[in-house]
Amino acid sequence: MQKGIIHYGIGDSIDTYMYIKSSTKAVASNGKPFLTLILSDKTGEIEAKLWDVSEDDEKSFASEKAVKIMGEIQNYRGRSQLKIRNIRLTTDLDAINISDLIQTAPIGQEEMMGKITQYIFEMRNPNIQRITRHLLKKYQSEFITFPAATKNHHEFLSGLAYHVVSMLDLAKAIAGLYPKLNKDLLYAGVILHDLGKVMELSGPVSTVYTVEGNLLGHITIMVSEISKAADELGIDGEEIMILKHLVLSHHGKAEWGSPKPPLVMEAEVLHYIDNIDAKINMMDRALERVKPGEFTERVFALENRSFYKPQL
Amino acid sequence: MQKGIIHYGIGDSIDTYMYIKSSTKAVASNGKPFLTLILSDKTGEIEAKLWDVSEDDEKSFASEKAVKIMGEIQNYRGRSQLKIRNIRLTTDLDAINISDLIQTAPIGQEEMMGKITQYIFEMRNPNIQRITRHLLKKYQSEFITFPAATKNHHEFLSGLAYHVVSMLDLAKAIAGLYPKLNKDLLYAGVILHDLGKVMELSGPVSTVYTVEGNLLGHITIMVSEISKAADELGIDGEEIMILKHLVLSHHGKAEWGSPKPPLVMEAEVLHYIDNIDAKINMMDRALERVKPGEFTERVFALENRSFYKPQL
Amino acid sequence: MQKGIIHYGIGDSIDTYMYIKSSTKAVASNGKPFLTLILSDKTGEIEAKLWDVSEDDEKSFASEKAVKIMGEIQNYRGRSQLKIRNIRLTTDLDAINISDLIQTAPIGQEEMMGKITQYIFEMRNPNIQRITRHLLKKYQSEFITFPAATKNHHEFLSGLAYHVVSMLDLAKAIAGLYPKLNKDLLYAGVILHDLGKVMELSGPVSTVYTVEGNLLGHITIMVSEISKAADELGIDGEEIMILKHLVLSHHGKAEWGSPKPPLVMEAEVLHYIDNIDAKINMMDRALERVKPGEFTERVFALENRSFYKPQL
Amino acid sequence: MQKGIIHYGIGDSIDTYMYIKSSTKAVASNGKPFLTLILSDKTGEIEAKLWDVSEDDEKSFASEKAVKIMGEIQNYRGRSQLKIRNIRLTTDLDAINISDLIQTAPIGQEEMMGKITQYIFEMRNPNIQRITRHLLKKYQSEFITFPAATKNHHEFLSGLAYHVVSMLDLAKAIAGLYPKLNKDLLYAGVILHDLGKVMELSGPVSTVYTVEGNLLGHITIMVSEISKAADELGIDGEEIMILKHLVLSHHGKAEWGSPKPPLVMEAEVLHYIDNIDAKINMMDRALERVKPGEFTERVFALENRSFYKPQL
Amino acid sequence: MQKGIIHYGIGDSIDTYMYIKSSTKAVASNGKPFLTLILSDKTGEIEAKLWDVSEDDEKSFASEKAVKIMGEIQNYRGRSQLKIRNIRLTTDLDAINISDLIQTAPIGQEEMMGKITQYIFEMRNPNIQRITRHLLKKYQSEFITFPAATKNHHEFLSGLAYHVVSMLDLAKAIAGLYPKLNKDLLYAGVILHDLGKVMELSGPVSTVYTVEGNLLGHITIMVSEISKAADELGIDGEEIMILKHLVLSHHGKAEWGSPKPPLVMEAEVLHYIDNIDAKINMMDRALERVKPGEFTERVFALENRSFYKPQL
Amino acid sequence: MQKGIIHYGIGDSIDTYMYIKSSTKAVASNGKPFLTLILSDKTGEIEAKLWDVSEDDEKSFASEKAVKIMGEIQNYRGRSQLKIRNIRLTTDLDAINISDLIQTAPIGQEEMMGKITQYIFEMRNPNIQRITRHLLKKYQSEFITFPAATKNHHEFLSGLAYHVVSMLDLAKAIAGLYPKLNKDLLYAGVILHDLGKVMELSGPVSTVYTVEGNLLGHITIMVSEISKAADELGIDGEEIMILKHLVLSHHGKAEWGSPKPPLVMEAEVLHYIDNIDAKINMMDRALERVKPGEFTERVFALENRSFYKPQL
Repeated sequence: MQKGIIHYGIGDSIDTYMYIKSSTKAVASNGKPFLTLILSDKTGEIEAKLWDVSEDDEKSFASEKAVKIMGEIQNYRGRSQLKIRNIRLTTDLDAINISDLIQTAPIGQEEMMGKITQYIFEMRNPNIQRITRHLLKKYQSEFITFPAATKNHHEFLSGLAYHVVSMLDLAKAIAGLYPKLNKDLLYAGVILHDLGKVMELSGPVSTVYTVEGNLLGHITIMVSEISKAADELGIDGEEIMILKHLVLSHHGKAEWGSPKPPLVMEAEVLHYIDNIDAKINMMDRALERVKPGEFTERVFALENRSFYKPQL
Repeated sequence: MQKGIIHYGIGDSIDTYMYIKSSTKAVASNGKPFLTLILSDKTGEIEAKLWDVSEDDEKSFASEKAVKIMGEIQNYRGRSQLKIRNIRLTTDLDAINISDLIQTAPIGQEEMMGKITQYIFEMRNPNIQRITRHLLKKYQSEFITFPAATKNHHEFLSGLAYHVVSMLDLAKAIAGLYPKLNKDLLYAGVILHDLGKVMELSGPVSTVYTVEGNLLGHITIMVSEISKAADELGIDGEEIMILKHLVLSHHGKAEWGSPKPPLVMEAEVLHYIDNIDAKINMMDRALERVKPGEFTERVFALENRSFYKPQL
Repeated sequence: MQKGIIHYGIGDSIDTYMYIKSSTKAVASNGKPFLTLILSDKTGEIEAKLWDVSEDDEKSFASEKAVKIMGEIQNYRGRSQLKIRNIRLTTDLDAINISDLIQTAPIGQEEMMGKITQYIFEMRNPNIQRITRHLLKKYQSEFITFPAATKNHHEFLSGLAYHVVSMLDLAKAIAGLYPKLNKDLLYAGVILHDLGKVMELSGPVSTVYTVEGNLLGHITIMVSEISKAADELGIDGEEIMILKHLVLSHHGKAEWGSPKPPLVMEAEVLHYIDNIDAKINMMDRALERVKPGEFTERVFALENRSFYKPQL
Repeated sequence: MQKGIIHYGIGDSIDTYMYIKSSTKAVASNGKPFLTLILSDKTGEIEAKLWDVSEDDEKSFASEKAVKIMGEIQNYRGRSQLKIRNIRLTTDLDAINISDLIQTAPIGQEEMMGKITQYIFEMRNPNIQRITRHLLKKYQSEFITFPAATKNHHEFLSGLAYHVVSMLDLAKAIAGLYPKLNKDLLYAGVILHDLGKVMELSGPVSTVYTVEGNLLGHITIMVSEISKAADELGIDGEEIMILKHLVLSHHGKAEWGSPKPPLVMEAEVLHYIDNIDAKINMMDRALERVKPGEFTERVFALENRSFYKPQL
Repeated sequence: MQKGIIHYGIGDSIDTYMYIKSSTKAVASNGKPFLTLILSDKTGEIEAKLWDVSEDDEKSFASEKAVKIMGEIQNYRGRSQLKIRNIRLTTDLDAINISDLIQTAPIGQEEMMGKITQYIFEMRNPNIQRITRHLLKKYQSEFITFPAATKNHHEFLSGLAYHVVSMLDLAKAIAGLYPKLNKDLLYAGVILHDLGKVMELSGPVSTVYTVEGNLLGHITIMVSEISKAADELGIDGEEIMILKHLVLSHHGKAEWGSPKPPLVMEAEVLHYIDNIDAKINMMDRALERVKPGEFTERVFALENRSFYKPQL
Repeated sequence: MQKGIIHYGIGDSIDTYMYIKSSTKAVASNGKPFLTLILSDKTGEIEAKLWDVSEDDEKSFASEKAVKIMGEIQNYRGRSQLKIRNIRLTTDLDAINISDLIQTAPIGQEEMMGKITQYIFEMRNPNIQRITRHLLKKYQSEFITFPAATKNHHEFLSGLAYHVVSMLDLAKAIAGLYPKLNKDLLYAGVILHDLGKVMELSGPVSTVYTVEGNLLGHITIMVSEISKAADELGIDGEEIMILKHLVLSHHGKAEWGSPKPPLVMEAEVLHYIDNIDAKINMMDRALERVKPGEFTERVFALENRSFYKPQL
């Protein structure tokens, strides 16, 4: 039986299937070419070096391939590195599906779409509901597979949709406790806030920023999309301006990329919900890798803190 | 029938009972003494000047007295000020209870204690439960009447307990969605995090900082109290250290008064919950004073933002 | 012959025509209503109090009226204030045009439009040219009368157009010295960068922020407008993305309201040009009010500096 | 005759006794295990690699052992590294005492305790005197051997006590010049300010942070200890609060770990004294390693400055 | 017998001699001119209004005059203000010397010059000694009367010399404890560090910044003076560069006005000494005005802190 | 035909002449010495390792030598590195001039001096003209060969003069558009602002900071030089103070090394001009290395941004 890569420690041997997230060629000090591979399975990833590669090796062990691999985990400059003993591409006989090797959301895509559809159904303001449904439908195929980010949090297949579903549940719980909050705005804000990432990022795997993503960013892209959707649907009320503001301000502060801070209560709460779900996701994954009584590795996006796992 | 002071505008006449929150003597440009009164009712407060006062007036219209007052609301340098036509102390005939004039929590003290007791009852770790119960009992009488702060949020009678009850409900909702969170730590953290305020602040009304509050602060005071409680109860496990850490780190960052940032997941979440409840309270009260389509006054503790109330 | 208000000092008498920029009612310590007037002419503005006003006075001396006024300049708490001796509304007999009392650009509207049209004419890239012409035409009537801001710089009638014209000349000079700069992008960036202000601000005089201006801001508004224009004109090339980026990044840094910093050389240069023209305008106007050998008043938007006027 | 390690340069051969401060195993690119040793003597430390180690080597050359070593100093990526020619554990025949290889305070432990005892003896306020004596006695054995920090300043055996003794002398000198300073508070503040480090740190050598040190910190630990001492001694006056405040505020600012800034004159001066002694210690040690006319290495804790040693 | 102005409280009557530090004319709401006087004696200062003044009054009660005054201390907007009952210029009969009414250093000018001369005498490096003596002599008459600043600390007659004398004593004490410090550099640094203030400031009383002070500052002025002195004395060694660096870096950080941070140990220590003497002076004077158990007014230059005076 | 080093990519072979900017010896893991060479030609530079060097090699391949070199460009840890196949010193037969291998200003030294002389000639104020001419003449030989900095911008032979010439042209263009600017001050400010670099830096090639440069900096050095020049020329007017202020404030802010911010309009504009020319130079050179549609490497001195080269 197979445990995931994050559960192996220095000195352990592995013999398993993995996915090549990236493969980069360089030349060693002996003048021979080698590949630096980032290998992943459902639980995490590890770096490996493949020495003295031929041109064939280079083509075979390229990014987005599945491989059968044997080797040991070693300490290299304080980080784990996999020393490869044996590596080959998988064949049909291995009966391995790439989706088995890629980290993905813990809920299925259909179940997630079902939940989101239900939240849209619960909206009472028809304009908010129509805009949200229109935009989700327009980008649904990307939305349901893209990660929420290239690193830090929810950086896995369907991470974006999973982040949205978790946030919707959180929005519902908070709105239940503070009844003055407008649920329609909160739900629409959650669904649309990161939808621009389907244009900011390159795709569901091996994800990088697009040129448009670099020059404009998902916030600005999405605000223009809301304008366009409103024009197409012939909707012209304050809802449009508030929805744009929700998307625009969801990073909370100018220095975090929101040219306007939240100036509507639901925008402020949307920022909290986004923050909580992203950060619990990060802490959760860092803590998963350590035992009670230990500290995690430093988490850059959490002010470089190292978290303690109590022994309670 | 009586509407509250925050619902009156410039030019309105009032004829009502109010409470003197503070009374300060000064000398006018004509050389005669006058009093600056801060008058409140359940909804808010207003400044008033009482001109040409005698020594008797000064004694009568002192802080923490209830008065019957007539006058008009005027614009004074951009702020509302009550121009007093007539003022007198209340008598038994007025049948006015001071508690009717003081802003207080929207839930009764007994109901709040009942809810908190229930949360303590639900704790599974006996050490956490005993420490929490011990400390709450020790300071219960102050806890149930003190405000949560002298200004900004929950700055009213029983504001501290009300803030704790809201946070407990929020903690329960969030822990329901992220099952790795330890509820015992979250609930104990919520109940203890601001309990040191019963020593940092002077009392339930006309609240100011004590010398100890200024020199040590509620966080440090409470951490020492947890040490003491653990000694008295003979408890000596990791729970004590974690509870101290929860209290210590709940302001989130060194520059906000926490010498250590949250380094335990529940500590981080406690900081979020505290923040959300305090800030929604602030926004709520600012928005209550304006009509849809208007912006609130600037809220200093929310980065001086002015919030918009949508017309949806 | 008439010199402007900024050239009068403490103790001087005035007898002139002025424009009421704003009129606010309040109640004096004697219980009687009075008006605080902000009066302007082409050179600047001054505060005045009109005491013991009747309801008629209040209606007469309202905002956006022209008046004939006599009085003296006095020192009130360190600032100049006009003590009114006599005030009346102007009549046809005065032969005073409101435009004679309002600060405005030093070049005529037609001349400015002529210069801008010429710059658009010089563009070589037809897509950039068409987008720029389309958007300028769409908002030309507001563009030619609006100020560039509510305060700080170019806060006068046609200030926006004047700022654009000055920036175009500066762009041309700089592009002449650094030939790798793309003039089309620079000129289009200059013309479009602040065009969203026609929606962010309320109008050419007594200018305040609109709700949309507060919640979205002129940068975001304009980026959506460029999207829309491109759709309407059927243009779909990299030009659109770069034009959006120019507008988006022209404030230079996230904390100054640009969610993306300039990432294209012309965007960086556009930011410099905007900055130089705005700041020279501010210094110029502050220095105009002092004599050689003196320091100006502190200029808030220039890091609160007080500038020295050399005696050379 | 033997000069210390910091006096050797690139290219020098050494043949000397050293102490293994730490020993970390890793795997080389040839697949064989090697050890990274941090070796020290009284003057400083150097890194060395021990290649192709056996399991026996690994056990022998572990942390906190003394060794006889021969080799050369080499330049490795800009830093000095010792290339080992020969290494063996010391035996009784070497007549080497570990304390001869460990950096330690320049004054003996007894002399230091004598000086501190004298300062306590000079205190006039019996409460301050009793608290200070009680706490020092309680933790004396750790206090006299611990370093003052894991790096930056006084990071050697008995560094904590040496830092305290230097600060006491400095406190006496300053109090002599500014007679309004209360010497009792200054002396007690100096003695107690870092005493919590005996719980924050793991021990006198190979020092790391304890879990309690990470989650609570020496400041908070010590404030609780003062509470406890006061309870045990039955002391209950303002002295207790001021002593806690001195400890609490000695880092000077919230962002440096003091939840309250100094609000008592002696607390402010304690912060200066701590700062001066720590920083002169750091500069001194950096300057010791260079010749007149040279700059030191960058000192991270002194804003990364590189100091010049004048040729005067 | 006469106590000083800082020892009077709200409601007290005074009948004493005072010095007019500044006198500013303005017009009251009744249209009549009045003077705002800042009155001082040796202990401090107070504001007073002189109403309905004639042109003669204006000339009489001008800045830098001594007056006999009667009145009461009142609370005006939270600050003390003197209500004048009677005021007249002093005559020969009053036998009052202006120096009796001006705050000045607690040590005489001759004694201060004697101490400084002794410190120069103790220097061993003849170049440092000659430069220091030359520059002190050149500006001695201003040095001995100027304040050290226009506000914040040592802002009184001979404050600059007094600050230097205190710092010299402190330098001697610290150099005694850390023997690696070069006393010549420390003493010369102390004597020269603020000597440029004799050109930066306008004079010993009613002190303001000169134009040169505003545009260049005392640090830059003094560095050029050291260059000039070295040329004149024909000295050309490393001493000159180090002395310039000591002056240049004594504010400690670029953002505090030192274009280079201290990069020589004595420069760093000079910065500490300057800081300690200035800040103890500020705290001392704030604490002098309150009773044990009270907090001082907020001290702006000490991060706006309010200090507590213990009851010990 | 020869293209420059920046135009070669990973995998390319080169066979060309290059200049050794620096040569550093170290010991490889096999115990043998090797050299790290920084090689340059007119277009840029590249790192190379020369393995197993003899003492002769070390002497031959020292800094500031010209070599004939063959090898391939490889990827080493993400950066380009030249793998040396063959290297030899150039001989007379190669007919290679070192100046052909060193990056230098695109305009000749004489042409640059001619332009600057013309600008000085155009000055109308004789004092400004004489000071400027005097100082330029005094340091002309260094001025015309030094770089403007050791890295970031204009870090090539004659870079300082080229930066000044570009800034003069820019100053002229801007002064033409804003006629209130004093051209004499602008031109003199441009010519003098960085002239202190001839003492701050070590020389025209292999440039490092001098001790004086580290301890005083070019700004302070130049201000003293202006003092001295004024003394020597017997000039004593406000011009001197303003010229010093222009040099002093040209970094714009205290934290950027200007102890006074610009307080004269021409000083502010000088800061803009310096900034624009330096930053366009940096962007230009980064963009030169990439193709349209690509992003540049991150440019540290431009807030670590990576710039996009449009495909227009």
